[in-house]
Amino acid sequence: MINIFQKPFAESSAVRFGLSFISRKYFSFKKIDLNIKSKEQNKDFDFFVIGGGSGGLAASKEAAQLGAKVGLADYVAPTPIGTSWGLGGTCVNVGCIPKKLMHIAAQYGESYEQQEIAGWSVYRQSIQNNWTQLVHRIQENVKRTNFGYRVSLRENKVTYFNSLATIVDQNTIKLQSGEQLKDAIYVKAKQILISVGGRPNYLPHIDNNLVITSDDLFSLTKPPGKTLIVGASYIALECAGFLNGLGYDVTVLYRNKILSGFDQDVASKLQEYMSYHGVKFVKGEIKHLQSYNESQREVTYNFGGQKEIFDTVMLAIGRVPNTQNLGLENVGIKLSKSRKILADQKDQTSVSNIFAIGDAVEGRMELTPVAIKQGRYLAQRLFNNQNEFVDYNTIPTTVFTPLEYSSIGLSEEQAIQKYGQENIWCYVSKFKPLEWNFSEKDNKSRGYCKLIVNRQDNERIIGLHYLGLNAAEVAQGYAVAIQMGATKKDFDKTIAIHPSSSEEFVLLKQIKGVSETDEWLCCG
Amino acid sequence: MINIFQKPFAESSAVRFGLSFISRKYFSFKKIDLNIKSKEQNKDFDFFVIGGGSGGLAASKEAAQLGAKVGLADYVAPTPIGTSWGLGGTCVNVGCIPKKLMHIAAQYGESYEQQEIAGWSVYRQSIQNNWTQLVHRIQENVKRTNFGYRVSLRENKVTYFNSLATIVDQNTIKLQSGEQLKDAIYVKAKQILISVGGRPNYLPHIDNNLVITSDDLFSLTKPPGKTLIVGASYIALECAGFLNGLGYDVTVLYRNKILSGFDQDVASKLQEYMSYHGVKFVKGEIKHLQSYNESQREVTYNFGGQKEIFDTVMLAIGRVPNTQNLGLENVGIKLSKSRKILADQKDQTSVSNIFAIGDAVEGRMELTPVAIKQGRYLAQRLFNNQNEFVDYNTIPTTVFTPLEYSSIGLSEEQAIQKYGQENIWCYVSKFKPLEWNFSEKDNKSRGYCKLIVNRQDNERIIGLHYLGLNAAEVAQGYAVAIQMGATKKDFDKTIAIHPSSSEEFVLLKQIKGVSETDEWLCCG
Repeated sequence: MINIFQKPFAESSAVRFGLSFISRKYFSFKKIDLNIKSKEQNKDFDFFVIGGGSGGLAASKEAAQLGAKVGLADYVAPTPIGTSWGLGGTCVNVGCIPKKLMHIAAQYGESYEQQEIAGWSVYRQSIQNNWTQLVHRIQENVKRTNFGYRVSLRENKVTYFNSLATIVDQNTIKLQSGEQLKDAIYVKAKQILISVGGRPNYLPHIDNNLVITSDDLFSLTKPPGKTLIVGASYIALECAGFLNGLGYDVTVLYRNKILSGFDQDVASKLQEYMSYHGVKFVKGEIKHLQSYNESQREVTYNFGGQKEIFDTVMLAIGRVPNTQNLGLENVGIKLSKSRKILADQKDQTSVSNIFAIGDAVEGRMELTPVAIKQGRYLAQRLFNNQNEFVDYNTIPTTVFTPLEYSSIGLSEEQAIQKYGQENIWCYVSKFKPLEWNFSEKDNKSRGYCKLIVNRQDNERIIGLHYLGLNAAEVAQGYAVAIQMGATKKDFDKTIAIHPSSSEEFVLLKQIKGVSETDEWLCCG
Repeated sequence: MINIFQKPFAESSAVRFGLSFISRKYFSFKKIDLNIKSKEQNKDFDFFVIGGGSGGLAASKEAAQLGAKVGLADYVAPTPIGTSWGLGGTCVNVGCIPKKLMHIAAQYGESYEQQEIAGWSVYRQSIQNNWTQLVHRIQENVKRTNFGYRVSLRENKVTYFNSLATIVDQNTIKLQSGEQLKDAIYVKAKQILISVGGRPNYLPHIDNNLVITSDDLFSLTKPPGKTLIVGASYIALECAGFLNGLGYDVTVLYRNKILSGFDQDVASKLQEYMSYHGVKFVKGEIKHLQSYNESQREVTYNFGGQKEIFDTVMLAIGRVPNTQNLGLENVGIKLSKSRKILADQKDQTSVSNIFAIGDAVEGRMELTPVAIKQGRYLAQRLFNNQNEFVDYNTIPTTVFTPLEYSSIGLSEEQAIQKYGQENIWCYVSKFKPLEWNFSEKDNKSRGYCKLIVNRQDNERIIGLHYLGLNAAEVAQGYAVAIQMGATKKDFDKTIAIHPSSSEEFVLLKQIKGVSETDEWLCCG
């Protein structure tokens, strides 16, 4: 099916890259032998974790702190063009962290007009970004984190195996490592956790050696140049946003909707903002892809035989769970149609001592903090008699595009579907962040707040949406309030912090479609 | 006492500056004659507001929207060096708004190292800020807002008088305007609101023509150069911070404490950060001040006769209420020792139909959003039979220094005093914002979160303190949760938004002095 999973597994990047990037200053106080030899390990575990991403690391450390004997195996299959990485999973290696660093760099790029207008002697026309330097800095950070995780596992007495794990039976796991994975050992575990995450999808009809995905982008040694991004998921738009902010020519090729699953009112405003800032949006698909010369790609679209040359083609067309080669069939773990693991509210799979968390599980939001919380709560339930579960109704998340979009709870579409149009109100505000007073470009009010309330339940907040600067920082506190069951009145009673963007939420008066105006909001 | 209040009142800046700065594009759809002639006015009002700052504007518009016949008078006495301004009060003219714009500009200045490391072709050594351009831009914004307020009063049918108001008797107000304030009219009002705010304090023993205050800084036509800031209030530190960020040599001269009244643990971390970034702190006072030559000031300190030359000396040594020349003695309104108006929880003064809100009232936090909320609630109580009051226990506020500090509820010192050391816990986290991965300078963990809980009350949050980036955006949402009575468990249950600084608050585990470590926090 997806050919990257069928390739022979290469040696892990944690070994390949060595530790040359790690700041000696930072870690000089540690003298730890990280080369764990599996032969020396006791091979019977209370809890064995397959997958060293955010969820697996959190669960393993929590369980070990509670006294369980814990093992963890992690292994990274390289991408078609050969990219691999170390311990930590998607988030720190090819997800949240490098993405946010690129985003931060791109935000500088987008602010040169503002810097100039604020009186700084920078000349936006002549400023350029050095991709190689940026990537080098980001990879230093990644390597430092990989190392930090290994230290942290060691400190928490979790036995780490840089090995491919396969479930042999309900209590036995085969671990393969070394050259060509020829060294194999078997370990026993009372309870097993699968937290293998997912990997980007590929297209069956094109040569995957000619494309990259988000797995490759953050360690790309040469600048991406003119880039086609295929897809309109949050990953697609985030990459499009920061590449555009860094100065590259970016086109987004998408089939249907922008940010499907998110509030479409906000999504359309976001698309408008990105277009205005230079990202091109084209509706369609790739019909054909060929290498034009060594470094260029000729894309044939599915409309009118139109062709276009790009330096880089990046696919961001969804992700598939990493459930191949895991031996799930050996124990009969049930999967969904999309090959995700079926687990109940207790994170239990169809096999009673095998649990699953994170992106490889059907029906869960694919978010690092969700996996971490699942992992911690699971360990607490298994080894500390606790009974806490993740509340999936009020999960906050942020899209860094680079104008940021935070969302908590339901979209307007979902709210209408669940409660009926007549039973909800959307309080809205279009506002201009004070930061944009130093911009001519952003003179239109493009910040947007939306609070969706259930009119049948005391105007309880069922959805919060924010498009503007610092959306992650804005939304986190509201997530606490909404998780506590906040109503519109709780928001209204709260004193504003002035001047901020976030204060818009405690000052909302206009109701979308009821009392909405184009009023210019200034200073309270 | 304070000589600025004894000077003859100059014509208001709203008239002096005219409207030449106002963006025609923006307001072109409005055709409104703003030159209200008092003779044409009906002089009997339901509600007359003295003072057109944030609180007065909010109260007057709210009351008018509820059907009351409302008048409002605003007048600005110029500073010793002649600065004056238009409608809107301290916040929009010489406070929050220009301060935050300077802060934003300064943050760019502080980020050039990060921009460079992130690969941008900027050379921090050679970059300079053009003060005149920055001030011009800020003043454009101020003038636009002044005009916007006048339009908004008109639209809300509030009669505006650009006049000095004096209370003659319980229902009569004298309004003076024109050249030398020779034109006087009298208006009648059933209810009167005093919302006159305050002005910066001056030192009795030095020539006030040789110093500026925050009233002058934001419209200073020439760059401040080497600056001495006297005081260590939030205003002093904010000005010191942004001037330093803009590239000026800044010294803070203070007597005793930094940020008195705020959490001193955080205050000391903030001082450390500011010192590290170049602000000099000197403990002492000005003994003597003289003009060295036309544009320089020679300061003699009170220790060892030491002298130093500055281009600018700015006083930020507290504020005094604007209660002179108001005729309060004519009706017997009671004042505190510091000449602030005494008002009860209903904002009622010692005279039953005269109310007071904002900075001129004894015992209130001097914050724009507090005055706005007081004004709105008062109008709702007077003209709509509502019964809502401001909750002064959970007021959030942010200091923009330029590393920002947000505070909600009690400081650690106040919490200990109120509940006893043994009954509180401070959950803390030292963290490094991801943004600082592009900095060598900020490699130390200087972000700081502190959550103070009452152990006797289910670990209810009684104080929240945050030192880091985007503190206002971070704190606003938590203010809603804390106002709702959030406990530590409510924070713990909430899913993090990753990567953000704000997520630190929902991941807190360490207790100050109990389980505190120097652990490096990375990625969940």
